[in-house]
Amino acid sequence: MTASTPRVQGHNPRTGEPVGTGVPETAPEDLQRLLTEAAEAFPVLRASSPSSRAELLRLLADRLEGAADDLVPLAAAESGLPLPRLTGELARTANQLRLFADVVLEGQYLEAILEDADGTAIPPRPVLRRWLEPLGPVLVYAASNFPFAFSVLGGDTASALAAGAPVLVKAHGSHPALSAAVSELAERAVADSGLPSGVFGIVFGDQQGVTALRDRRIKASGFTGSTAGGRFLFDVAANRPDPIPFFGELGSINPTVVTPAAVSVRGAEVVDGFVGSFTLGAGQFCTKPGLLFLPAGHGLEDRLVAAVEGVAAAPMLNRRIAVQLQAGLDDLAAHPAVELLAAGGLGPQEGSWGSARLFRTSAAAVAADPIALTEEHFGPAAIVVEYTEVDDLLEAIAAIDGSLTATLQAAPDDTFPLAQVLARLSERAGRVIYNGWPTGVAVAWAMNHGGPWPSTTNVGHTSVGATAIRRWLRPVSYQSLPDELLPPALQAANPWGIPRREPPPPR
Amino acid sequence: MTASTPRVQGHNPRTGEPVGTGVPETAPEDLQRLLTEAAEAFPVLRASSPSSRAELLRLLADRLEGAADDLVPLAAAESGLPLPRLTGELARTANQLRLFADVVLEGQYLEAILEDADGTAIPPRPVLRRWLEPLGPVLVYAASNFPFAFSVLGGDTASALAAGAPVLVKAHGSHPALSAAVSELAERAVADSGLPSGVFGIVFGDQQGVTALRDRRIKASGFTGSTAGGRFLFDVAANRPDPIPFFGELGSINPTVVTPAAVSVRGAEVVDGFVGSFTLGAGQFCTKPGLLFLPAGHGLEDRLVAAVEGVAAAPMLNRRIAVQLQAGLDDLAAHPAVELLAAGGLGPQEGSWGSARLFRTSAAAVAADPIALTEEHFGPAAIVVEYTEVDDLLEAIAAIDGSLTATLQAAPDDTFPLAQVLARLSERAGRVIYNGWPTGVAVAWAMNHGGPWPSTTNVGHTSVGATAIRRWLRPVSYQSLPDELLPPALQAANPWGIPRREPPPPR
Repeated sequence: MTASTPRVQGHNPRTGEPVGTGVPETAPEDLQRLLTEAAEAFPVLRASSPSSRAELLRLLADRLEGAADDLVPLAAAESGLPLPRLTGELARTANQLRLFADVVLEGQYLEAILEDADGTAIPPRPVLRRWLEPLGPVLVYAASNFPFAFSVLGGDTASALAAGAPVLVKAHGSHPALSAAVSELAERAVADSGLPSGVFGIVFGDQQGVTALRDRRIKASGFTGSTAGGRFLFDVAANRPDPIPFFGELGSINPTVVTPAAVSVRGAEVVDGFVGSFTLGAGQFCTKPGLLFLPAGHGLEDRLVAAVEGVAAAPMLNRRIAVQLQAGLDDLAAHPAVELLAAGGLGPQEGSWGSARLFRTSAAAVAADPIALTEEHFGPAAIVVEYTEVDDLLEAIAAIDGSLTATLQAAPDDTFPLAQVLARLSERAGRVIYNGWPTGVAVAWAMNHGGPWPSTTNVGHTSVGATAIRRWLRPVSYQSLPDELLPPALQAANPWGIPRREPPPPR
Repeated sequence: MTASTPRVQGHNPRTGEPVGTGVPETAPEDLQRLLTEAAEAFPVLRASSPSSRAELLRLLADRLEGAADDLVPLAAAESGLPLPRLTGELARTANQLRLFADVVLEGQYLEAILEDADGTAIPPRPVLRRWLEPLGPVLVYAASNFPFAFSVLGGDTASALAAGAPVLVKAHGSHPALSAAVSELAERAVADSGLPSGVFGIVFGDQQGVTALRDRRIKASGFTGSTAGGRFLFDVAANRPDPIPFFGELGSINPTVVTPAAVSVRGAEVVDGFVGSFTLGAGQFCTKPGLLFLPAGHGLEDRLVAAVEGVAAAPMLNRRIAVQLQAGLDDLAAHPAVELLAAGGLGPQEGSWGSARLFRTSAAAVAADPIALTEEHFGPAAIVVEYTEVDDLLEAIAAIDGSLTATLQAAPDDTFPLAQVLARLSERAGRVIYNGWPTGVAVAWAMNHGGPWPSTTNVGHTSVGATAIRRWLRPVSYQSLPDELLPPALQAANPWGIPRREPPPPR
């Protein structure tokens, strides 16, 4: 590094002031070293026992919690997010690391299948032993909006390490100082675990991230961020001479449908829940409900306006997000089928503040121009979409791109076809919510945080929850191997004690 | 269709003569109708019960077997493959359909996870019910080399129908008459099952196949064929405005390593097995062993030459494959580090015949120029690669691209590092074979037929065996839904009786 090395500099969104002096971009020779170390660490991590990987994950969780007093204020300074939210997010991130320790120890994720020979089958079947093995070094792009849970030690990193894949994190430019602090902690934990340093690494700088994605030593990638950024990187991964899996979570509009009965029975509650959900954390959640389908004549305008006007301005994660939000909302406001229904409080001139905005359009307009009307606006903005008939509603839903979530707000009702609407919503989303709100993603065995394009680049997998580990794995079958040459998980004695699909005992 | 409609015309590879009068290319309006029918059939098939899909799969198997006397001679005429092989392949294809009926009925493939609420978790956990749902209509590109098992009713079609995804097959141009006959049988079976016609469709014509892949109604695709063709279609799928999963099985070199002890103990047996495997079916298997690593000074040259010279010429599947093989082998023979070791018998002038060819090079040459020396040559051709030290061997293996299979031929041996070589081989392949040969792919629960690029476009999945169904599925989580609105698989009473990961009973 020389004095002229560019630095990644974070800013406090509340004031616009720089936080510290930034972190130097990774030098080209350092990037090459990190890639080599990751490749060299792979055989070691791949061969490591479940218990050693679980120990590493739990150590990372403990160290993260132990450093909370230093890390949370740093995260607050660089992200503008409130301290209580960040305290909870750090706890969630530690629990996520521990969940993957449980996943590794349980071993169901290995999908082990043991099958014996059958010479009478057509074609004949040899002795087969199948399980899942890690892909190799994984490149994780950190997100800005969860500086702990979707960043350096977030779900992509936790699930990849659990799978036995070394991780190279591309730090997000919005919180470089926090990223450096968390990565130092992670590097120490890896060293204290007796694992090679290449198990975990971090790179700073956008071009460095792209260079790493093109490198043959990287075998898969995870990303959480914007549709434009994710599409660019997806294309880089797909256009390699040897394309690699790219698991990107991009933009999501997250439609919510309110039935007439729900309006009648608890319309005010729906309004308050909706406004709370779409403005939570300044609307900077990928699960923010961006479209609220209300039956025409709902009579909730006054309540909607009052609720939105009561929302104070909140800091946006960085200036780029604030500027893009404003540009997107200007375009939306200029659409002939759209009107501005309400606006929240304005923030200070300095820093990057976002103000709540609620728009109104019709289901017919959405069906006619879905590209303009169902694009994600990352921030505290949403659109009320009024429908007249169920067919009208179904047509609009069919026109919307894929989302991470879709929500139904309903109530006992004689006439509304709940099952039909749920079926259509579930075709467009990875999680379907009934009488709840999509913000808030539980770290759980049964969670799915994924969905059809553009909500993710890979509809078959989740980025949150126990099954997120499947992204970093590939099946391998061993045919006719002597027992002692099989991986322990597949040996007759089952030394790891994992669940396996085994042949019936001989009769 | 008018008199000027282009026709897809098959030819008998043994004679070069046309078989019948061909099949008309699908007209643009018919393609649009097929796509619409597939999209309309999707909600019906998605909502169908496991037993109804299992019945369809078994009916297809029965009808296929019932038509064997008509179909096998047609397949022989269009492919040049011998009748016994095709009779066996048809039986395998029927068994494959029945395997997926078993998979559907068993229900483990749905990966159902039920989880109850936990308000104390950070973040709090709602009631979650997760399973896998079909992606939507799937486009299946048939392959030339298995006119039954990887064609109209082959593994991709069987696994997609099992998953609940309507299938549109793009017929292979080498066996159009057979494809038309099998598709008529399939269409009748779908109708007799009471399912909508869009559950199964077929298109003829290469441009029609590309048009379908670009269509928004197609949600995923499966392909088996050449690296060039697969890469082209992978790029089409990846470059859509809404990229879709593309599961392509492309080229594979399938390295086989022979240890010094194996040479000593049973060198002649290894030679005979190898020559039999790489020339089986004129070498037109994606699992053909293309590289045989032998220790330098193996002394097996004479036996190799004699075995290859004893191999009669065999018909290639079509003229294009025969021409490409010849061009590829001419390039290989001109490589300065390569010599031709042996050649098999020549075929007649008419038709498209392939003659066995065995080349020789060194492990150091492979490590130095892997692109030229480890490209797949589809046909009865292979390279003996001589290694001097184990390091020499490991370096060459590391330089080879991904393969479907990797094989180790070993014998009790004091010094050869079997575990280390197996670990390196398993990083490069999806199936690792010990003292066997890779040709012959069992249709089984524990089979993996996949591998790193370029052997497939999607290293995380298999195209053969029970778990091939996972390709056509995506997770969906239902949050806080009333029991009666959940899919049956997730309802409390478990009406389908499938295995599920369930919360522990309340204490």
